[in-house]
Amino acid sequence: MEVTNKYIVIKHHIEDAPKESHFELKTGTFALSVRPGSDDIIVKNLHISIDPYQINRMKSYSSSQNATNFTVPITPGEAVDALAIGKVVASGNAMFEKDDLVMGVFTWAEYSLVKEGSIIKKLESSEFPLSYYLGVLGFSGLTAYAGFFEVCKPQKGEKVFVSAASGSVGSLVGQYAKLMGCYVVGCAGNKKKVELVKEKLGFDDAFDYKEETDLNSTLKRYFPDGIDIYFDNVGGEMLEAAVVNMKAFGRVAVCGVIAEYTDAGKRASPNMLDVVYKRITIGGFLATDFMNVFEDFFAKTSDYLRTGKLKVIEDVSLGVESIPSAFVGLFNGDNIGKKIIKLAEE
Amino acid sequence: MEVTNKYIVIKHHIEDAPKESHFELKTGTFALSVRPGSDDIIVKNLHISIDPYQINRMKSYSSSQNATNFTVPITPGEAVDALAIGKVVASGNAMFEKDDLVMGVFTWAEYSLVKEGSIIKKLESSEFPLSYYLGVLGFSGLTAYAGFFEVCKPQKGEKVFVSAASGSVGSLVGQYAKLMGCYVVGCAGNKKKVELVKEKLGFDDAFDYKEETDLNSTLKRYFPDGIDIYFDNVGGEMLEAAVVNMKAFGRVAVCGVIAEYTDAGKRASPNMLDVVYKRITIGGFLATDFMNVFEDFFAKTSDYLRTGKLKVIEDVSLGVESIPSAFVGLFNGDNIGKKIIKLAEE
Repeated sequence: MEVTNKYIVIKHHIEDAPKESHFELKTGTFALSVRPGSDDIIVKNLHISIDPYQINRMKSYSSSQNATNFTVPITPGEAVDALAIGKVVASGNAMFEKDDLVMGVFTWAEYSLVKEGSIIKKLESSEFPLSYYLGVLGFSGLTAYAGFFEVCKPQKGEKVFVSAASGSVGSLVGQYAKLMGCYVVGCAGNKKKVELVKEKLGFDDAFDYKEETDLNSTLKRYFPDGIDIYFDNVGGEMLEAAVVNMKAFGRVAVCGVIAEYTDAGKRASPNMLDVVYKRITIGGFLATDFMNVFEDFFAKTSDYLRTGKLKVIEDVSLGVESIPSAFVGLFNGDNIGKKIIKLAEE
Repeated sequence: MEVTNKYIVIKHHIEDAPKESHFELKTGTFALSVRPGSDDIIVKNLHISIDPYQINRMKSYSSSQNATNFTVPITPGEAVDALAIGKVVASGNAMFEKDDLVMGVFTWAEYSLVKEGSIIKKLESSEFPLSYYLGVLGFSGLTAYAGFFEVCKPQKGEKVFVSAASGSVGSLVGQYAKLMGCYVVGCAGNKKKVELVKEKLGFDDAFDYKEETDLNSTLKRYFPDGIDIYFDNVGGEMLEAAVVNMKAFGRVAVCGVIAEYTDAGKRASPNMLDVVYKRITIGGFLATDFMNVFEDFFAKTSDYLRTGKLKVIEDVSLGVESIPSAFVGLFNGDNIGKKIIKLAEE
C-alpha cells in the first residue's frame, strides 16, 4: 500500500535567523510495506520534538557539527531528522513489530523509513502522555537533570539563576533546583512567561529580560549576595552579566547559547578577571554524555510527576505543515515550554 | 638606630598599561628598633617578587580586588606590598628573632615594618637559593603545580598548550607536563624566549605569537588533532584561538589574562558553541586555594630540582630603584622567567 507522505526540508543552508521561507513542505509517495529481505522499519510519526540546537545542523559549517550522532549536518532537500515518537507500521527487523511504540531519530514527516539504529527505545504502555518521552522524560529532562546535578553540583540553599526559564530545559532546571532546596530566579522574554515561571513552576522569582536596560544591575537586584549557579540557555550578554554577578567558586553550566546560534556578533565576552579571581567554572555539556544517569533521572522524574511535584509545560502545534513556523518561533520566543508537533493520535 | 628607607608607591590609581611615571621612589627615616611593648617585626628585604596580577590591585576599581588577602587594593602614596623574602632585623614578637629568614607579604622597600600575620613562613637553612622561595618553590610554583595537576587533571599523553611559556608560571607548567608524559607546546613573545622554551625547558615545540597572523591556523598547525589542555596566562585572542582548537572534553585553566589586565577591549569572546558541543571547561583558579597540596608540591618540586629535572629561569634586577621598570616590563614582555628584585645579600 502506498500513501502520500508530507515532509519538511531546508531549501538551502541557513546561516542566521531562520525564516519560514527557508523551509519547504514536500510530498512524495511512500510505501507502507517493507521490501522483501530488507530490515527497514516503517514508522508513523505521532509526536516530533522541535529543538533550537537543530539550527546549528542547518548551517553550511559550524564547529558544533559532527560532535555527536545528533549533530551531523542536515542536507538541503532531504527530510530533516529529529527526535520523535512513532508507531511501527511495518517492520523487516525482528526486534520490532507492527504497532510497537518507538522513540528515536525519525524525520520531520508523517512517515519515516528507518533502520534499527535510529530507534532509541521501545515504549511500553505508559502511565504518562507519550509526548513526555520527548520532553520531561526524554532528552530535555535528561539535559536539565544532568546539567544541573552532574555539571553544576548544587548544594542545598545555593542561589541559582536560570535563563530561558519557561523553556523546555529551563522550566525543569528551576523545578529540580527548588526540589533540592535552592533559591531560584529565572528570566524569560515576556510577562506571561514570567508569571508562569513564578506561579505555576514555583521559582522564587523571575523577570522579563526585555524590560531590563542593564542586566548587570538587574541580576544584582535579584541576587544581592551573588549567584552560585548559572544554568545558561542563551549565552550573549546574559552570560556576561551572570559572570559579573557570580559568587566565588560559582559554576556556569552552558547548555545552549541561543542568542549566539543565529548571530555570532552576540558572542559573550565574559570578564575573565572575574573568572580568575572568583574561581568561576564555565562548562559546556551535552546530555548524551550522561546516559549513565538516565535510569536515576527517569525514576526520580517519574516519581516527581506521579506526586505532582514537577509541572510539565508543553507547547503543541498540529501537523507537519506547522513545523517551519514552530521551529522559527523558537528563535522569537514564541513557545512556552517544550515545543512539540502532534501529527496523529496513538 | 635610624636609617633612610627607600620605597616605591603608586602616585595614583593606574587604569591601563602601567608606566614608570606612575610610580615614585620615596625615602623616609626608618627605626631599626622596635618600640617597647610593640609586637612589630622589622624586616630587611632581600628579594622581592614582581608579579603582573598586582596591576589589578592598582586600579581604582576591579572586580578582582578583595577576592583574597592578596588582592586588596593598593593605596596611592603608600608603599606597595608584595611577596618578599627578608631577614629579621628586630622583633617584638616572640615567634621571631633577629636574623630569622622569613617569607611573607612585605613592601616594595628596603625595610618593612610588619606584624606576625604578614609572615607566611620562616625559612630554615636551605639547599636552594633563597629567591626560589618566591618562584619555583613559592607561589609561582604552587600556581603551576595546582593549576596543572588539580585544575587541568592531565592524563599521560595529552596535548598541552601553555601561553607565556617562558614566564614564571608557564615555564614550570610546561616542565611539569613534560615530566608526566604530555606533549607540550608553548608560545612566547620573541625568538630568544622560544629558543629557551624549546632548548632549555624541553617543551616539544614553541612559537613566537608576534610572528603569527592567524592564531587559529597557528594552533591548528601545532595541534593538528586538537588541544586537550590549555593553561592560559594571557586571555584575549589566544584564549579564543585555543577554544577553537580544543578537543572534545578539553580543559582550560585560566591562571591569568595579562592581555586583559590593562585593556578590557582585548577581552576574549570564546566561541560558546565550541564550549557546548566540545564540552569544554574553562575554569579560573588561584593558587591560595590549594594550600592543601603545598606539601606535595614542595616535596616533589624540591626533588625535581635536586635531580636537575626542573630548570629554573629567574630574571633579576637590582635595588629598589629598579622596581618600577621591572614591573612595567612585565607588561612589555621584557622579563624571561620569574622576575625578582634583589636588594641585598643574605
